[in-house]
Amino acid sequence: MLENITAKQIKKMTLPQLALLCEEVRQKIISTVYKNGGHLSSNLGAVELIVAMHYVFDFPDDKVIFDVGHQCYTHKLLSGRYEKFDTIRKKGGISGFPKREESEYDCYNTGHAGTSISAALGIAKARDINNQNFNVIAVIGDGSFNNGLVYEAFNSLRLLNTRILVVLNDNGMSIAPTVGSIHEYLEVLSADDEHKAKKEKHANIFERFGFAYDGVYDGNDLSVMIERLLAVKEKLKTQSVILHILSKKGKGYSFCEENPEATHGISVGSSDSISKEYSEVLGEKLIRLAEKDKRIVAVTAAMTTSLGLGGFFEKYPERSIDVGICEEHATILCASMATENLKPYYAVYSTFLQRSFDEIAIDICSQNLPVTLCIDRAGISGSDGETHQGVFDLSFLNPIPNLTIAVPKDLVEFENMLEFSANFNSPLAIRYPREGKRIFKAHSPIVRGKWEELTSGGGSAAIIACGETPVTLALASAQILESQGIPVRVINARFVKPLDSEMLKNLKEKFIVTVEDNMLIGGFGSLINGFFAVGGKIIKNFAYKDCFIPQGGICELMEDFGVSCQAITDYIKNAIG
Amino acid sequence: MLENITAKQIKKMTLPQLALLCEEVRQKIISTVYKNGGHLSSNLGAVELIVAMHYVFDFPDDKVIFDVGHQCYTHKLLSGRYEKFDTIRKKGGISGFPKREESEYDCYNTGHAGTSISAALGIAKARDINNQNFNVIAVIGDGSFNNGLVYEAFNSLRLLNTRILVVLNDNGMSIAPTVGSIHEYLEVLSADDEHKAKKEKHANIFERFGFAYDGVYDGNDLSVMIERLLAVKEKLKTQSVILHILSKKGKGYSFCEENPEATHGISVGSSDSISKEYSEVLGEKLIRLAEKDKRIVAVTAAMTTSLGLGGFFEKYPERSIDVGICEEHATILCASMATENLKPYYAVYSTFLQRSFDEIAIDICSQNLPVTLCIDRAGISGSDGETHQGVFDLSFLNPIPNLTIAVPKDLVEFENMLEFSANFNSPLAIRYPREGKRIFKAHSPIVRGKWEELTSGGGSAAIIACGETPVTLALASAQILESQGIPVRVINARFVKPLDSEMLKNLKEKFIVTVEDNMLIGGFGSLINGFFAVGGKIIKNFAYKDCFIPQGGICELMEDFGVSCQAITDYIKNAIG
Repeated sequence: MLENITAKQIKKMTLPQLALLCEEVRQKIISTVYKNGGHLSSNLGAVELIVAMHYVFDFPDDKVIFDVGHQCYTHKLLSGRYEKFDTIRKKGGISGFPKREESEYDCYNTGHAGTSISAALGIAKARDINNQNFNVIAVIGDGSFNNGLVYEAFNSLRLLNTRILVVLNDNGMSIAPTVGSIHEYLEVLSADDEHKAKKEKHANIFERFGFAYDGVYDGNDLSVMIERLLAVKEKLKTQSVILHILSKKGKGYSFCEENPEATHGISVGSSDSISKEYSEVLGEKLIRLAEKDKRIVAVTAAMTTSLGLGGFFEKYPERSIDVGICEEHATILCASMATENLKPYYAVYSTFLQRSFDEIAIDICSQNLPVTLCIDRAGISGSDGETHQGVFDLSFLNPIPNLTIAVPKDLVEFENMLEFSANFNSPLAIRYPREGKRIFKAHSPIVRGKWEELTSGGGSAAIIACGETPVTLALASAQILESQGIPVRVINARFVKPLDSEMLKNLKEKFIVTVEDNMLIGGFGSLINGFFAVGGKIIKNFAYKDCFIPQGGICELMEDFGVSCQAITDYIKNAIG
Repeated sequence: MLENITAKQIKKMTLPQLALLCEEVRQKIISTVYKNGGHLSSNLGAVELIVAMHYVFDFPDDKVIFDVGHQCYTHKLLSGRYEKFDTIRKKGGISGFPKREESEYDCYNTGHAGTSISAALGIAKARDINNQNFNVIAVIGDGSFNNGLVYEAFNSLRLLNTRILVVLNDNGMSIAPTVGSIHEYLEVLSADDEHKAKKEKHANIFERFGFAYDGVYDGNDLSVMIERLLAVKEKLKTQSVILHILSKKGKGYSFCEENPEATHGISVGSSDSISKEYSEVLGEKLIRLAEKDKRIVAVTAAMTTSLGLGGFFEKYPERSIDVGICEEHATILCASMATENLKPYYAVYSTFLQRSFDEIAIDICSQNLPVTLCIDRAGISGSDGETHQGVFDLSFLNPIPNLTIAVPKDLVEFENMLEFSANFNSPLAIRYPREGKRIFKAHSPIVRGKWEELTSGGGSAAIIACGETPVTLALASAQILESQGIPVRVINARFVKPLDSEMLKNLKEKFIVTVEDNMLIGGFGSLINGFFAVGGKIIKNFAYKDCFIPQGGICELMEDFGVSCQAITDYIKNAIG
């Protein structure tokens, strides 16, 4: 039934047929995610909601924006992408997130939390200005509901004088269980009828912002969903509505229902050997450092486990803070705690650190406070695509004064850098990928701004690399070239900022090659270009070219977008030849 | 009385003495701001509150964080900075914003909106972890109260299990009158006793987050302020409190009371001749473009007038959106309206655009949407100091794919670029300073990525500059050098991205000099270094060195931090000599 389904067909279905469709969708999602990886339990929880939405609303004329996008698979399956669904998250395949480029049924790309209500308001306002008539729906989970953007959007609802539907899909989880007062408030709203009086008293938070509030309903009950959506569709003609539903993350697959955090995202094992995740080292080392230093606190924004801090949070609950998906607030908490002689570590994915650019500059660095940013998933992160690649961090961090930026070449060096951080009293960023795949032999002591040479003696060219994969590529390239009679110097640029100017000054090689897993523009290589702008060297930067990097395997994408052993060796051979 | 006042003395004063003190403070603020410039009406409105706070609390043991900082002058005068107050906002003088480096009475630096509650929570949490005992107070205006950060902080109050006092100083204004539902809500709370029942019903928004709510009181009534602060100080021992006060912006100075927006910030005329502000050109041109193109909408975040959009908002109210101090939301509104065939212009100060880095990258540029960012106050903005310099924008915008970055050399070119933007269908950023000081002779048509030569024939060196002051410096340097027999080519790099690679390839000069009013790291010059990394050129970048740039006059700071005619001419003479 699902295979060739059209919007028109869905509208003609009976309830039993729609229920069957839900079942088919669910099976397809489970089987595909176990093959391709992806967001499982969040998608399973939203099946009935989205089938009901397709039954009630007229897509693509009506528009739906999925916040973050972790619940959009059903929508993809019902909007002509069944055929391609097997390619989801693969290179060249369909995206695991909403993508305008992919289908007219996707009206707005998402990936980072909290944007859907703003986007829905913008689309609705444009509709009004353009004198059009369609419905605009934001589907948002309770995890995203913590984000400040939601309140900025709420604040302007009356001001914009427009109408949208917000479906608050409440499953008590972001990736981890949702935290904070908003969540507690939603729980009050979700309490049973005994508390109806209390509920009515409290519902007015949303009403104050100009929404009619309708809730709470079972989001996994198809007939209830259809009934409520039909009702709010009517109401929507005159007013904005929040439809609050409760759904079960992982619904219909008992393993997911019981393990919603572990099955939020499913990874498919890579072919490379994995020694360990960097996050594990962070967790273990931070526990040991915190034993000795009572000033250490750990802060995260809704990702404790995936950042490796589960153990720390268990051992030091009083020094552990998870603020939910509030990256800006988390950054300021760190800065302010540092003013009172604490030593905060803020662990975050590279892509989500983008939300904190202003706070890193103003709150942390202009006050020169000893906050350590532990930046995970730096570089190409793979199958999540454009919105999740951690390839901008060096570019936006480099221009910030007072910030020291360290990039470990492997897990051992990462641990050494964390040890170094314990006695470092200024802002420090350490950026690293998810997986540690190899441990190098050499490990010289960590001194701020001091690099290490990984080869002895000079060469025809020098390759300066930062980060595990770039250093690996540099050494592999050097080995290949050496076997062809071309000796090459390899340097591990463990600090991107400050540069090791002494080592750079002493470099005798005319040809300098830089390798990194960041954008070319503003990245590590651009600092080397600046250092040698006075002339005398011929420099080639290997870094990501100026475009958004889509989904795919990390290695294949690195190669496609500018960073590979082949390209490095070819360049050096041609250059010195 | 004010001259040598100490914390101890204030505590011993009688009410009439304190009232007299308020009067002295007010007079000192007025006389100083009219000499030095600064934030006037916001500071005048907070005099009684802050005098009362000093009477009731024990600074610096107790901590106060002023949101944005536009109300901190009284605090400075009462905490040992009377002597230096005449130097406020001057180079080398005390800051117009809270500064830890300046006094132990300033515990946290502010400048951008919405950070104070997060910072208060962090400091309070650190106090608890450190087993200390003092009060932490955030003073925040209703304008900042729109910002999403406030809700991220609220959401974590219970989670952090700590206690703070938030003084909501409500004057109905940010810089412009405050907008949005939060503001309307505060108005309900502020309604007179007739609405007491209604008020109690609604007060629970704050209570839901864990605050006891106490309001509304006359913030300009000294005895009321003392009484209430004594009461909340008691309550604060067991619970967080929001004290909601109403104050009059500009209180005690009738001209300010009647013109709160115009007297929010007072500028002291510079000695340079000013032809016109760039914002005026934006306003005028956008009105003309909007006459022809019904798709044009203008968006701002609480700064309509200072961005020049007052006329546009009046003429096209249905196409004008001011969302209050919600820069991220404003950015997403633009992106989403662009998906529905509108043509949004988002006008914003460079320094506040920092809040939108993630949304510019993900929402606007990764979707390649035709939003035009009109970036005002780019470059060194002067007396506001570290937190307000617009010197990072080129660095953080350069690495974002799909973005075209234009920098006009004067007001005429700015207007031409706006004309160009009307038919440009991708993300576009135009960055410009506040003041246009001169109009150059040459004005060639605007073509994306095409620069213009401002001198004819070749030279010994080429100076490539972007922006009005840099181009001015380049031409002045060329003139000086020419008079000394050294011909120099001057190029106006009107587009920072993309570079005019054709012109660059054809450059015959060996010595290349770049000039810009942005950070050295990641700025325009770094792109030129990258272009010529292959060797053969000797390049020198004139841009701001790697530190936060303090307050002062624009010209003197440019010189101090790396960009001056003297430095450029000296370099070229030495280089080619």
